[in-house]
Amino acid sequence: MDHMYRSHNCGELRASHIGQGVTLSGWVQKGRDLGGMTFVDLRDRYGITQLVFNLDANEELTMAARKLGREFVVQIKGQVEERSSKNSNRATGDIEINVTELKVLNASMTPPFTIEDETDGGDDIRMKYRYMDIRRNPVRDNMIFRSKLALETRKFLDSQDFVEVETPCLIKSTPEGARDFVVPSRLNPGQFYALPQSPQTFKQLLMIAGMDKYFQIVKCFRDEDLRADRQPEFTQIDCEMSFVTIEDILNTFEGLTKHLFKHTLDRDLGDFPRMSYDEAMERYGSDKPDLRFDMEFVELNDIAKGHDFPIFDAAELVVGICAKGIADDYSNKDMKKLTEWMQRPQIGAKGLIYVKLMADGIIKSTVGKYYTDDQLRIWADKMGAEPGDVMFIVSGEAEKVRKQLNELRLEMGSRLGLMKDGDFKPLWVIDFPLLEWDEDSERFHAMHHPFTSPKQEDMNRMLTGDHETMKALRADAYDLVINGSEIGGGSIRIHDRELQSRNFDLLGFTKEEAEEQFGFLMGAFEYGAPPHGGIAFGFDRLCAVMNGQSSIRDFIAFPKNNQGRDMMIDAPSPVDGDQLNDLNLVFDFKED
Amino acid sequence: MDHMYRSHNCGELRASHIGQGVTLSGWVQKGRDLGGMTFVDLRDRYGITQLVFNLDANEELTMAARKLGREFVVQIKGQVEERSSKNSNRATGDIEINVTELKVLNASMTPPFTIEDETDGGDDIRMKYRYMDIRRNPVRDNMIFRSKLALETRKFLDSQDFVEVETPCLIKSTPEGARDFVVPSRLNPGQFYALPQSPQTFKQLLMIAGMDKYFQIVKCFRDEDLRADRQPEFTQIDCEMSFVTIEDILNTFEGLTKHLFKHTLDRDLGDFPRMSYDEAMERYGSDKPDLRFDMEFVELNDIAKGHDFPIFDAAELVVGICAKGIADDYSNKDMKKLTEWMQRPQIGAKGLIYVKLMADGIIKSTVGKYYTDDQLRIWADKMGAEPGDVMFIVSGEAEKVRKQLNELRLEMGSRLGLMKDGDFKPLWVIDFPLLEWDEDSERFHAMHHPFTSPKQEDMNRMLTGDHETMKALRADAYDLVINGSEIGGGSIRIHDRELQSRNFDLLGFTKEEAEEQFGFLMGAFEYGAPPHGGIAFGFDRLCAVMNGQSSIRDFIAFPKNNQGRDMMIDAPSPVDGDQLNDLNLVFDFKED
Repeated sequence: MDHMYRSHNCGELRASHIGQGVTLSGWVQKGRDLGGMTFVDLRDRYGITQLVFNLDANEELTMAARKLGREFVVQIKGQVEERSSKNSNRATGDIEINVTELKVLNASMTPPFTIEDETDGGDDIRMKYRYMDIRRNPVRDNMIFRSKLALETRKFLDSQDFVEVETPCLIKSTPEGARDFVVPSRLNPGQFYALPQSPQTFKQLLMIAGMDKYFQIVKCFRDEDLRADRQPEFTQIDCEMSFVTIEDILNTFEGLTKHLFKHTLDRDLGDFPRMSYDEAMERYGSDKPDLRFDMEFVELNDIAKGHDFPIFDAAELVVGICAKGIADDYSNKDMKKLTEWMQRPQIGAKGLIYVKLMADGIIKSTVGKYYTDDQLRIWADKMGAEPGDVMFIVSGEAEKVRKQLNELRLEMGSRLGLMKDGDFKPLWVIDFPLLEWDEDSERFHAMHHPFTSPKQEDMNRMLTGDHETMKALRADAYDLVINGSEIGGGSIRIHDRELQSRNFDLLGFTKEEAEEQFGFLMGAFEYGAPPHGGIAFGFDRLCAVMNGQSSIRDFIAFPKNNQGRDMMIDAPSPVDGDQLNDLNLVFDFKED
Repeated sequence: MDHMYRSHNCGELRASHIGQGVTLSGWVQKGRDLGGMTFVDLRDRYGITQLVFNLDANEELTMAARKLGREFVVQIKGQVEERSSKNSNRATGDIEINVTELKVLNASMTPPFTIEDETDGGDDIRMKYRYMDIRRNPVRDNMIFRSKLALETRKFLDSQDFVEVETPCLIKSTPEGARDFVVPSRLNPGQFYALPQSPQTFKQLLMIAGMDKYFQIVKCFRDEDLRADRQPEFTQIDCEMSFVTIEDILNTFEGLTKHLFKHTLDRDLGDFPRMSYDEAMERYGSDKPDLRFDMEFVELNDIAKGHDFPIFDAAELVVGICAKGIADDYSNKDMKKLTEWMQRPQIGAKGLIYVKLMADGIIKSTVGKYYTDDQLRIWADKMGAEPGDVMFIVSGEAEKVRKQLNELRLEMGSRLGLMKDGDFKPLWVIDFPLLEWDEDSERFHAMHHPFTSPKQEDMNRMLTGDHETMKALRADAYDLVINGSEIGGGSIRIHDRELQSRNFDLLGFTKEEAEEQFGFLMGAFEYGAPPHGGIAFGFDRLCAVMNGQSSIRDFIAFPKNNQGRDMMIDAPSPVDGDQLNDLNLVFDFKED
C-alpha cells in the first residue's frame, strides 16, 4: 500500500464518490459475516463507513477481514460502490467500499467496555481508560462542542476589541477564600508559589495598565474537599473592562452569551430579564432561580397568621408554592415521604404543611384543625391554586424557610417535568449585598470577593457607617444564571486605595496582612487606576448547561475523580526522595 | 457629568467628527501651558487625543486642567474642533477637543519612570511596576500582537478540523528530562502532582482516543536554573495528528506558519526549504542555521592537509568561512581580539587561523610559513573569497570545530549587518538522529524525546541492532527554524508497545521504571493506537522572532526574572505554617 494513510476520512464519502478508488484508515467498530460477504464498519472521528469483503472474489482478504477484532486500527484501499440497502441514519449510508487491500496498522485487545453511545462501562473503568471513552460519540461530541464554544467566545470578544492576555500560573498564595495549591520553589528555598484560584488581581492590574478590554480562557485551581461535580482545576472565561458601568458590562456579556447560543446551537435568546438579589430570594428563595417554570413563592403571613395555629403565629414567614395537578396522584404516603425528604439535614425543614385541592372539590390538608375550607380557599385564591393542585407551605425564620422551599420548588419542578431540555431561561441577578455577617466567626465575609465595589450611592456610607449600615450595603455585583445554574458572576471593582483598605478592615484583615498580601494592588491604585469591572464565566459549567447536562466532568477531556485523582495516569503519586531534598522538604504525616 | 464614561475612545476622532459633542476618558500623557491656552494629551489603549482649555473662556476649568499630573485618570466633555496646526503623525491629529467639563476619576503619584516609547526606567523598576510599563506603546503593542497571533492560530487550525482540547495541569511527575514543579496533594498525603513540561503523553492519548487532529495553546512549566530568556512558565502551540506521515505534518504546519505571517504581518513566505540534520551541521555547524545570510562552511581537508602544518595535519576537520569586505578594516589587534573571543570557554576554540585578501591583492595570513600565496589562492577559489575578504579557518575534532565556527559565523553575520530585521528565512531541519550517546553517563539520551519514532526503515534495526547501529538510527523528527531560532519541533511518535519498550530500555529505564512512569501510555498502545505525530511551537519565541526581537520576556504580560521571581507581586513567598501542616510537609533547609 502506498505511503498515504487515507484519501478521505470515514465520514465524507457520498453517492457522488461512487466509482472512485479511495484509501481509508480507522477503527473497526464491528464486523458481520453474511455467508459469502463480510461487512466491517470502519470508524473515525468523522463518521462510519461500511467496508465489504467478498469471499468469492478474494478469499484471502475476506479471511483476514474476518479476523479483525473490535478497535483494530486498519488501512484499506477499495472502490466506492452504491449500497443495495441504504442506511438513511448514516451520512455515508448510500455507499460502501469494496475492499481490495487491507493492512492492520495496529491490533487491539478487547476493550474493557463497549465503544457505543450507550456503553456498559461504569464510571471508574471509563475514567481509567478515558482514551477509549472519548472514542464514544457523546464524549467526542462534547469535546468538539467545547472547542467550538471556546473559538466562538474568542471571535466575539475579539470583534469587541478585547485582548486575550495570559496571566501567570505561578503566583502568590493568599489565605483569603478557598485553599490554594502551593508549589515549592527550588530556587527560593522555603518559599512557595500558588496556583491561581482566578486571575482576579492580574486582570485588575491589566486595567490599570490601560489594556481597556481583557479576556482570557484560563485554567484556575482550588484545593477544596471535592464535592460532586467539582474539579481541582477548572476553566473560566475571564473578562475585565475599563471605564464601564454595570450597564456596559451586562450588555457586553449578554451579547457574548447570545452569540454563543446562536453560533453553536443556532438558538436565539431574547433579551435577558434582570432581578435584584432581594427579589430573587423573595420570589424563588434562591439567587439562581430556574425560570423554566413559575411555581413562585406566595407569602401568606397576612392570611395564615392569627388563627391560633401556633407554628405559623410564631413564624417570621409563612410561605408556599402551588404544585399543579398532583392532588389526586399524591397519596398520604407520598406526602409523608416528601415531608421526610424536606426534614433531611441537607434541607432541615421542621415540617411541611400541605393543602390538597382534590379534583372533585374536596379539600384535604394537614391544618384542617385550624383553618376552615373557606379560609383555605382564600389561600388558594392567593396562590392561584385550582382543583387538582397542592399547596405546600413552610414557615419559620424567613431566610431559612426560603432556602428550604427553594429545594422543594426544584424537586417539584423536576418531578412535574417542568425543567425542559432545550429550553433556556437566562437571568441577570443584580444588586447583591456587599458583605455577609458570619455569626460563628463574628466577622464579615465578602459576598462576591474583597475587590467588589459598593454601589456608587453606598460608598460614603461604607467609609463612615456603623455595623448595621455595613450589613445593608449593596454591591455593584451581578450573576448570570441560566436554568438555575450560575454561569457567570462579576462586579464593578474598587479602584480607590482608601475604599479598598476600608474593605479589608471590614473583612478582618490587619493593615499588615492587607499590605503583605495585596500591597501591590493597593499601590497600583495610586498610579492612575481607571474605574473598571468584569465578569468570569464558568466554562465547564456553560458547556454542560448548553447541552442540558448536569455534570461538568463530561466536558473535561481528562477529569479527576472525587478524591482529586487522575485514574488514568494515577496521579498524584509519591515522588523521588531526591526531588523533595532539592526542595528542602520533609514529609511528616500526622494522623488527624 | 452623566454616567457614561465615554462616547468615543482616544484614538478614533477624525475631521468628520468636527462639531460633535463627545465624552472621553483616559490618562494624562502630558500637559502644556501656552499663555491663555492649556493643552493636555489624553491617552488610552487606542491613541492620544489633544484637549484644549481656554483661560479666557473658562478660568476655573483651565486652572483645574493645569493641576493635572502625568497619568491622572480623567473624564472630559467637550466639542470636537479642527486643529489650527495639524499633527500628521497622529491618527487624531486633525482635531482637538474644546473641553467644557473635566472630572478627575483618579489621581496618580508621579510614575517612577516615563511612560514613553523610550523610557528612562531600568529593567528591575519596570518589572516591579509592570502595570505602568504595559501602558507604553511598544509593550502594549506586543500584548496585542500576541493576542492576534493566538487567534489567527486558532482560526487556521479550526479551518483544518483541529479540535482544541484542554489537557490537565495537575499531572504526574516523571524524572525524565528537565525538572518538574511539584504540587503537594492535601487529599492524598505524601503524594504530589507535577505541572506539565508539555502535554506530550496526553496529546498522544487523544490520538489513541480518536480525536484525529488536536491542538492547544497551553502553558508549560520547567523548574530549570534560569538562563537569560528562559521562563519557568511558557506557552506552546501544541499539535498532534493521526494517520499522518512527516509530509502531512510539514505541509500542515508550514501552512499554519505562512497563514500567521500573512495575517499578522502581511508577509508572504515562500515555500520553506528543507535540510537534513547532517547537512545543516556540515554547511552551518548548527541544527538551527540562520539563513538570512550565506557564509557557508567550506571544508578544506583536501587542500589544507599534507603541507607539514601539524595542526591541520592532526585535525579531523579543517573548515572555514569567508567574511566579505573586511580585510582592510580589521587590524591585527582586531584579529587578536576575535581569536580570544573564539578561545573563551563558552566557545573553546584552540585558535583561529585567518587569511586576509587585501584589496590591493596582497595576502596576509597566520599560516604564511606553511602555505605559499598561490596555495592560499586555491583556498580562496574554493571559498569564493575575493580581494577585500577574510577567510577564517578552524580545525580539530569535526563536531567541535563545527560548533565553534557556527559561533563565529553568527558573530560575523551580526557584525556585517547580514541579519536584517524584517527578513524572514524559515527552514525545516529533518532527519535528526534518534539517540545521542552521552560519554559521561554512559547511556543514550533521546535527541528529541522518548516517544519519537525511528524512521520506518530503521525500525527493525532498532529492535535488533548493536550499539553502533543505535548511534546511526535516524528519527522521523523535524524542527522549524526561522532566522536561526528554533520555533517548533516535533516527530512521528512510536505507537507500538514493543518499540516503545525497546526505546525505554535503550534510554536506561528499567522495566519497572518504564511501567511505573509510562505504563498508562504503553497500555494504551494495546487498545488500538493509530500512527500519529505532532509538533509544538514555542509561542513566546514565535512572537519575539516575528517582531525581530530577541527577548521573549517582552511578549509576556507578567514575566519572572532570572531568579524565577515575580517582582511585582513578590512571589514566591513564605506560606502559613498551617498551610504546610495541612500538607504534612516540614521545611528543612540544608545548605549545600
